[in-house]
Amino acid sequence: MATHGQVITCKAAVAWEPNKPLVIEDVQVAPPQAGEVRVKILFTALCHTDAYTWSGKDPEGLFPCILGHEAAGIVESVGEGVTEVQPGDHVIPCYQAECKECKFCKSGKTNLCGKVRSATGVGVMMNDRKSRFSVNGKPIYHFMGTSTFSQYTVVHDVSVAKIDPTAPLNKVCLLGCGVPTGLGAVWNTAKVEAGSIVAIFGLGTVGLAVAEGAKAAGALRIIGIDIDPKKFDTAKNFGVTEFVNPKDHEKPIQQVLVDLTDGGVDYSFECIGNVSVMRAALECCHKGWGTSVIVGVAASGQEISTRPFQLVTGRVWKGTAFGGFKSRSQVPWLVEKYLKKEIKVDEYITHNLTLAEINRAFDLIHEGGCLRCVLDCQV
Amino acid sequence: MATHGQVITCKAAVAWEPNKPLVIEDVQVAPPQAGEVRVKILFTALCHTDAYTWSGKDPEGLFPCILGHEAAGIVESVGEGVTEVQPGDHVIPCYQAECKECKFCKSGKTNLCGKVRSATGVGVMMNDRKSRFSVNGKPIYHFMGTSTFSQYTVVHDVSVAKIDPTAPLNKVCLLGCGVPTGLGAVWNTAKVEAGSIVAIFGLGTVGLAVAEGAKAAGALRIIGIDIDPKKFDTAKNFGVTEFVNPKDHEKPIQQVLVDLTDGGVDYSFECIGNVSVMRAALECCHKGWGTSVIVGVAASGQEISTRPFQLVTGRVWKGTAFGGFKSRSQVPWLVEKYLKKEIKVDEYITHNLTLAEINRAFDLIHEGGCLRCVLDCQV
Repeated sequence: MATHGQVITCKAAVAWEPNKPLVIEDVQVAPPQAGEVRVKILFTALCHTDAYTWSGKDPEGLFPCILGHEAAGIVESVGEGVTEVQPGDHVIPCYQAECKECKFCKSGKTNLCGKVRSATGVGVMMNDRKSRFSVNGKPIYHFMGTSTFSQYTVVHDVSVAKIDPTAPLNKVCLLGCGVPTGLGAVWNTAKVEAGSIVAIFGLGTVGLAVAEGAKAAGALRIIGIDIDPKKFDTAKNFGVTEFVNPKDHEKPIQQVLVDLTDGGVDYSFECIGNVSVMRAALECCHKGWGTSVIVGVAASGQEISTRPFQLVTGRVWKGTAFGGFKSRSQVPWLVEKYLKKEIKVDEYITHNLTLAEINRAFDLIHEGGCLRCVLDCQV
Repeated sequence: MATHGQVITCKAAVAWEPNKPLVIEDVQVAPPQAGEVRVKILFTALCHTDAYTWSGKDPEGLFPCILGHEAAGIVESVGEGVTEVQPGDHVIPCYQAECKECKFCKSGKTNLCGKVRSATGVGVMMNDRKSRFSVNGKPIYHFMGTSTFSQYTVVHDVSVAKIDPTAPLNKVCLLGCGVPTGLGAVWNTAKVEAGSIVAIFGLGTVGLAVAEGAKAAGALRIIGIDIDPKKFDTAKNFGVTEFVNPKDHEKPIQQVLVDLTDGGVDYSFECIGNVSVMRAALECCHKGWGTSVIVGVAASGQEISTRPFQLVTGRVWKGTAFGGFKSRSQVPWLVEKYLKKEIKVDEYITHNLTLAEINRAFDLIHEGGCLRCVLDCQV
């Protein structure tokens, strides 16, 4: 291709400073180095983690940067030694890498590959510990190893999943974060069995994906907890069978749920990122076996607490990242499941905008009616 | 027997008030009612839970009471409807009941039978919600449904395990609490696999039983953590392969262990009951899969805390009570294992005294050199 080996100048939404509107800039994207892949991003969605880092509350957030981690695109070119993808491949960038070689990947116990974390955690690429993005010579940091709020991005080869080219990229971009996180929390982390009683705290995209996963697993009761009663109608379509609004009750929400379920739920999922809710989610679990999974990401420095008696009497406290899915191995499988209509994706997309309208999209994700807003990056 | 249906007057150590020496009294022990068993206690050991309640720090502690929950004896008589044991059977009283009928027992997921908890939690028997103990007509509360610091006690039939009559009761009394708690924490709760790296915080009886269980499970490294270096020689005999004294290090102990194990341990066990140590035990676990089990009992009102990130990145926080063993089903199996020399028991017994010397025994368990002190109750 004409652009192979060349710097590409394209549009990207740059976060110059925390909590200031993103600016669409002409960004120079350097060619991929050894072990890297340059991807033309066709569609990207927004997730709350983007908003959290953008807000400046993330102490590890680096500025200026290009945010974005839930997207789909087409490989433009590859660096030396890259064998698993080639130009033209349809891909989903994966913020959780999978190298298949490190202690984590080989353990068989976790999806938390450690191969490129030391670089992606500080906004650079492994090869030279520098960024591939610049604006007029000024480097712009990467974000989560993906930086999808750009028409082109460079990712490590261990951070890109090759998918079925027939899949609509404006839909399957969602399989880069929120939907797998919810489904995997149920299937991989909690391993919910048929007949279970499940509680879901927070009915955003991740919470609804938990509901969908729980329904697929055969859960008997799926109790959705949210302070916004407008979410219940949507939630029903994803499998939620009962709705509890903490504002309707004087008692602590954990007690409300224990009373409602003859002793507590079998599995609970915190999909908000609120440490008080994480405690409630643990404490609404049934004595003897109830398992609570933290899915939401809490603000930096916050801590969870409970009485140890809660654990000594049989409750289990766990967490999940990307739903425990091994990204390169399993994102393509999720795409297949979508194509076979075994999992929902379209139903999470409530808004469609363009990359140029990204600041409007950031406003939308804080509004109750928005699940996912997909941005067309190439117009 | 001559005593059947009669009140028995015998010696018992009564805790009249918190934190005051126990008093050996002539206690009247009423006959067992329906579903109850009166047991002649031959040997009882002391455990830290007895000392905790005796100290007055347990808000659920009731006085006057007869403490004790790690013992062995012989059935003297049974109440109406009791079919699973009969006079003359050798038994171990079990503070954790097993009815085989309740939601908990039938779940297959927990050993926390709920059948008699509403009574044993408040120091009485289910049948009439009264005590079977009195001194000159004044009722004395039961403790943990066992009250073994007495020559005779009355327990619910779901709280007594019938064991091989050839087993020496002055040894297997230990299978009523501490040893099974440690072994089961490894085998049932954590399910440690061969090749694992294990950390044990606190090298008392329970911690040593964890070491023994981990060794039996094929753990590769068993790291004992204690502030008393004198415990290491003993600990080696139970399987501990390395010793870390937090006092020898400036860094937090969790960091010391992470450094020592290339990222953290696979399994950790808190066997002290200290909430700060519980946090360290979680945080020394390996990212991605490390599992920490709370075995120790913390003081009332204390809370555990950590950053949710610890769980989101794959650590699991659990707890255990009586090591997850189903008491009536599995205590007899543990006795068999002891008789076949597959588990240690004798090695935990460092002192032997008589019931009359019980206050000396309470002093001993706070001394470093004492693991278990067994009291002969019938002299």
